[in-house]
Amino acid sequence: MSRIGLIGGTGALGKAIARRLAKAGHEVTIGSRAAESAQAAAAEIGAAGGAANEDAAQGQDVVIVTVPYSAHASTLAQIKDKVGGAIVVDATVPLVPPKVMRVQLPAAGSAAAEAQAHLGEGVRLVSAFHSVAAHKLDHDGKVDCDVLVFSDDVEARKVVIGLCEDMELRGLAGGALVNAAAAEALTSILIYMNKNYGGDGAGIRFTGLTTAPALP
Amino acid sequence: MSRIGLIGGTGALGKAIARRLAKAGHEVTIGSRAAESAQAAAAEIGAAGGAANEDAAQGQDVVIVTVPYSAHASTLAQIKDKVGGAIVVDATVPLVPPKVMRVQLPAAGSAAAEAQAHLGEGVRLVSAFHSVAAHKLDHDGKVDCDVLVFSDDVEARKVVIGLCEDMELRGLAGGALVNAAAAEALTSILIYMNKNYGGDGAGIRFTGLTTAPALP
Repeated sequence: MSRIGLIGGTGALGKAIARRLAKAGHEVTIGSRAAESAQAAAAEIGAAGGAANEDAAQGQDVVIVTVPYSAHASTLAQIKDKVGGAIVVDATVPLVPPKVMRVQLPAAGSAAAEAQAHLGEGVRLVSAFHSVAAHKLDHDGKVDCDVLVFSDDVEARKVVIGLCEDMELRGLAGGALVNAAAAEALTSILIYMNKNYGGDGAGIRFTGLTTAPALP
Repeated sequence: MSRIGLIGGTGALGKAIARRLAKAGHEVTIGSRAAESAQAAAAEIGAAGGAANEDAAQGQDVVIVTVPYSAHASTLAQIKDKVGGAIVVDATVPLVPPKVMRVQLPAAGSAAAEAQAHLGEGVRLVSAFHSVAAHKLDHDGKVDCDVLVFSDDVEARKVVIGLCEDMELRGLAGGALVNAAAAEALTSILIYMNKNYGGDGAGIRFTGLTTAPALP
């Protein structure tokens, strides 16, 4: 069991991740700009508690950041001095409205690279959860979608792949943090496909892998 | 039946694509730097003929470019004035050896964007075939992998999706040409996964799409 803070945890993706992690037995704290909203969301999904983002980032084993790209830099600045030795998982995708079906990667190459710059080299940063639609995690059971997990910290990557398993998702290592660019860019393709092929939550599965974790 | 030129068609991917297209009944010309090599490859796989790249690019309905990134710019310069109104399909992935498991996208964002700049706005450019391992096309039968197809020219994109079907592959529209960045970046992830998970040709499948073409 880990202590896990969900920063931006009242949003659709954050709340859905928090619910599955709480259900798996983790001690989950929802974070939000307003502590009251966080506490209400925590009560709704069965998390241990709710707090302001700064407080939810403190004293955790894992801190998961799920905020819109427009709030990325400011949120990381808020939690930077709170996360300590925790693994920080960034799920941010650099979508630039209104053209969200168009790949528009930031100058640094990825939101993950930007996060590393914001948080500093000492932070155990992981990038994950880009390609899973929030509403697919809202109910129990398996989800037909792999989660790519990127980090330069191999141990941290393993921990997050384990959390995916706890959530009935298959997490797959995708290599170094810089490789998050691929998953971030892919999100615009999935949004395009939802529109073009009428799906309600396009996802990806990787094929041809001999020793990958089994599907949940 | 279309007339199709395979530029760099003596390489592993080009030859494998050419073989499947020829088998489906298309009139395929293999192109290579040396006409003799192209003719030998054509005889080997049952293509209509072989020629120097410049000649193989002329008088075609579709021209498919499969060259290493190091030969990308020079090859496009060679064929630029030959392709005319043909659909040009670029399969180039901007891998930068030796770090091929690391996403290193070019300054323009993608090899596809670079190709557009090289060939000019008038060319009917499509980016496709990034994520399929050549040796998986070497034999007959289905391949457990989707092919992403990007273009600003919707009709050209449809033609290439049709060619995928002829090759017993599922082609999926991935949106505008600029979105090729996602598939190009993903290639480094697949190479990483081949190493990390011991596969012999990692691929991707998209899930959750209601009206996508059926699997072959």
